[in-house]
Amino acid sequence: MEQAEISTETSSTVITCWAAIAWTANAPLSIEKVEVDPPKPGEVRIKIISSGLCGTDKHILDGKNKVPLPAILGHEGAGIVESIGEGVTSVKPGDKVLTFPIPECKECQFCLHPKGNMCLKEKVLSPTGLMLDGTSRFTCRGRKIYNLFGTSTFTEYTVVHEIAVGKIDAAAPMDKVCIMSCAVPTGFGAVFNTARVTPGSTCVVFGLGGVGLAVVMGCKASGASRIIGVDINEKKFPPARALGVTDCLNPRNLKKPVQEVVKEMTGGGVDFAFEVIGNTDTVVAALESCHMSYGVCVMVGESPSNSRLSFDPILLLPERSLKGSIMGEYKTRSCIPKLVTDYIQKKFNTDPLITHQLPFQKINEAFELLHGGYCIRCVLLF
Amino acid sequence: MEQAEISTETSSTVITCWAAIAWTANAPLSIEKVEVDPPKPGEVRIKIISSGLCGTDKHILDGKNKVPLPAILGHEGAGIVESIGEGVTSVKPGDKVLTFPIPECKECQFCLHPKGNMCLKEKVLSPTGLMLDGTSRFTCRGRKIYNLFGTSTFTEYTVVHEIAVGKIDAAAPMDKVCIMSCAVPTGFGAVFNTARVTPGSTCVVFGLGGVGLAVVMGCKASGASRIIGVDINEKKFPPARALGVTDCLNPRNLKKPVQEVVKEMTGGGVDFAFEVIGNTDTVVAALESCHMSYGVCVMVGESPSNSRLSFDPILLLPERSLKGSIMGEYKTRSCIPKLVTDYIQKKFNTDPLITHQLPFQKINEAFELLHGGYCIRCVLLF
Ligand SMILES: NC(=O)c1ccc[n+]([C@@H]2O[C@H](COP(=O)([O-])OP(=O)(O)OC[C@H]3O[C@@H](n4cnc5c(N)ncnc54)[C@H](O)[C@@H]3O)[C@@H](O)[C@H]2O)c1
Ligand SMILES: NC(=O)c1ccc[n+]([C@@H]2O[C@H](COP(=O)([O-])OP(=O)(O)OC[C@H]3O[C@@H](n4cnc5c(N)ncnc54)[C@H](O)[C@@H]3O)[C@@H](O)[C@H]2O)c1
Ligand SMILES: [Zn+2]
Ligand SMILES: [Zn+2]
Ligand SMILES: [Zn+2]
Ligand SMILES: [Zn+2]
Repeated sequence: MEQAEISTETSSTVITCWAAIAWTANAPLSIEKVEVDPPKPGEVRIKIISSGLCGTDKHILDGKNKVPLPAILGHEGAGIVESIGEGVTSVKPGDKVLTFPIPECKECQFCLHPKGNMCLKEKVLSPTGLMLDGTSRFTCRGRKIYNLFGTSTFTEYTVVHEIAVGKIDAAAPMDKVCIMSCAVPTGFGAVFNTARVTPGSTCVVFGLGGVGLAVVMGCKASGASRIIGVDINEKKFPPARALGVTDCLNPRNLKKPVQEVVKEMTGGGVDFAFEVIGNTDTVVAALESCHMSYGVCVMVGESPSNSRLSFDPILLLPERSLKGSIMGEYKTRSCIPKLVTDYIQKKFNTDPLITHQLPFQKINEAFELLHGGYCIRCVLLF
Repeated sequence: MEQAEISTETSSTVITCWAAIAWTANAPLSIEKVEVDPPKPGEVRIKIISSGLCGTDKHILDGKNKVPLPAILGHEGAGIVESIGEGVTSVKPGDKVLTFPIPECKECQFCLHPKGNMCLKEKVLSPTGLMLDGTSRFTCRGRKIYNLFGTSTFTEYTVVHEIAVGKIDAAAPMDKVCIMSCAVPTGFGAVFNTARVTPGSTCVVFGLGGVGLAVVMGCKASGASRIIGVDINEKKFPPARALGVTDCLNPRNLKKPVQEVVKEMTGGGVDFAFEVIGNTDTVVAALESCHMSYGVCVMVGESPSNSRLSFDPILLLPERSLKGSIMGEYKTRSCIPKLVTDYIQKKFNTDPLITHQLPFQKINEAFELLHGGYCIRCVLLF
């Protein structure tokens, strides 16, 4: 694939480069030339070096979760700042950065609150596909292309608001750290910030994809005594065991509902249950798997748009808790670059989550690997 | 009404006394003579001195919540031990006690766990109406009568397992402390143990009955800066304001859904929402009323049997929490007698929750007061 065409490196130039366009759901991505506008004030143009494929991208391509299309998907990106718009102060050209699907403006009511991370500057729950000024920076064949969660990493160059860019350590290995933009903090934070898993506790993790296995790593690091992994794809079991899962269950091979089996295995239910698939049925199964009295169920998976979670409230009454968690409740810019530093300092090792690497132009093959369950995280290299 | 007939005070005697029988739902209680068997091993026979009427009793009489009938209802009781069965060591005849709908055996897995209070010895969520040996201590007109949650306080004498009896201070005013058996710990604990309301926070309380106003008192004691009270019965507003409610909302007089109004009043939602009614609709409204990112919604009300809570999971995903709370998560025998001592020492004053007192035989009048919303707690005196 030929190099992107850049005339100069000032921020007034349009860059023409390759990107993967999702014209519609339920179709392969189309790799096409796009024009990437220069960054406007408060924006940063980034040369993407690597990007993970997240379950959220898969849901969108499967038509389960609705976002404005045609769009450039991808939000789990690592890159290098190419140019900056007016007023940008936290990064400069050449900096290594991550792109965050949830920004942190550090000014809005949500950012100023000590808890939570849902900065008001991005509508991740009802995405507009547009930058804050209501326009897009991408054009393909004369047509405006939407962005995804203000990030869009399935492109050689992207434009992201400064408030969604995290400057990371210059020593960061760029082929590995992209998963720190989503899977790793989402999984770790669901454990450390949302559930607050305690030493010696029992856990169950529904869904052993990239995010689910980051949850597993977090549970293990928290000293959980037992970590039950649930997946319908048994190819996930060996890597899951390697990361700390003590018992693997495939609901399709059980004679009873998986929640009954988990309850029997743990004398009434686990302390902490995590749903990391994105189905309402498995959210209820996870809720039922945790102890009726002190169980905490954390919902990480994104259920299809306009779905209904439905259960007898008596499930909750005797003091179960059901909580949601997005990006692990981390305030992204304040917290995630520190995670990267910890990773570089070998305080933990998330490399086993990356089972495959492919060149960017093989992105459809990467999605097939994810669909088939042959991989945990497949990282695209640009 | 004539005195109960007791021939001796040993534990081998059957006592004949007055009790209020619920033969069916949707009918007045029938005050009849019943025979109360002596306590079996591990059981305590109690002369009831006072009993509150709880929303749970009302739900049962309204047919919303199913329990085995005919039964003697009532679980919010204060009384004096009349006799004890073999092996009972924690109380003796003459002791002042409370009866708890949730026992604490201090031996089962649930009791031994530091969190939660759902002792395995009582199935409060699927009540059997029977003592642990599978039989009942009440007979009326030759027919066995079920108990309620192992307590049954709408009777001059009842038999309760020792593990559901809490010995209280000899100085306890018996016409007042019955509400410490349910309404007060349920409301206080929902605030202190389940929600953990923080100083300066904003709260909304759906349902300003006896339990809801105990929640209000807990929120105020926790230093909440704003406490919004929601009820369809405006007669509840003056007592609610007196206890700390800062803003009263009647959903039937609003142009928009009450959750929208609460969100507008609080810049996006309260920190803590409490549902203390027992409707799935109001649980969802309470959940929507709390802040999307850091809001905590505590469900205290008991929804009708076999109802469904149904909502878009996206309500929870951005880090709301939905928790249930029964008896305020207090381990009953270990914690509630201490609450009574605190009350006697005037650390708090729950007397304003008791707006009416009636002689036991006027129990149907007491239920009418509760239905009409003329009272917060009406205490029956025996
Ligand atoms: N809350 C957040 O901030 C956040 C962030 C990233 C991803 N997500 C969501 O987390 C979920 C997981 O993401 P991922 O990247 O790990 O996806 P993934 O596709 O890599 O993994 C999903 C796993 O679930 C398994 N699975 C599917 N259906 C199942 C079923 N019925 N029972 C058991 N297992 C089943 C699959 O086999 C797979 O192993 C997705 O819903 C994604 O949208 C949420
Ligand atoms: N979880 C527990 O441990 C526990 C313990 C006791 C009671 N409860 C439950 O708590 C609830 C309240 O009990 P209580 O004794 O205070 O009852 P209550 O009848 O005294 O009070 C209920 C209040 O809710 C109001 N209300 C009814 N429908 C409403 C609506 N649609 N919108 C707004 N307000 C409405 C009523 O006017 C009343 O003021 C009941 O469901 C009861 O079963 C639970
Ligand atoms: Zn993601
Ligand atoms: Zn913000
Ligand atoms: Zn009660
Ligand atoms: Zn017990």
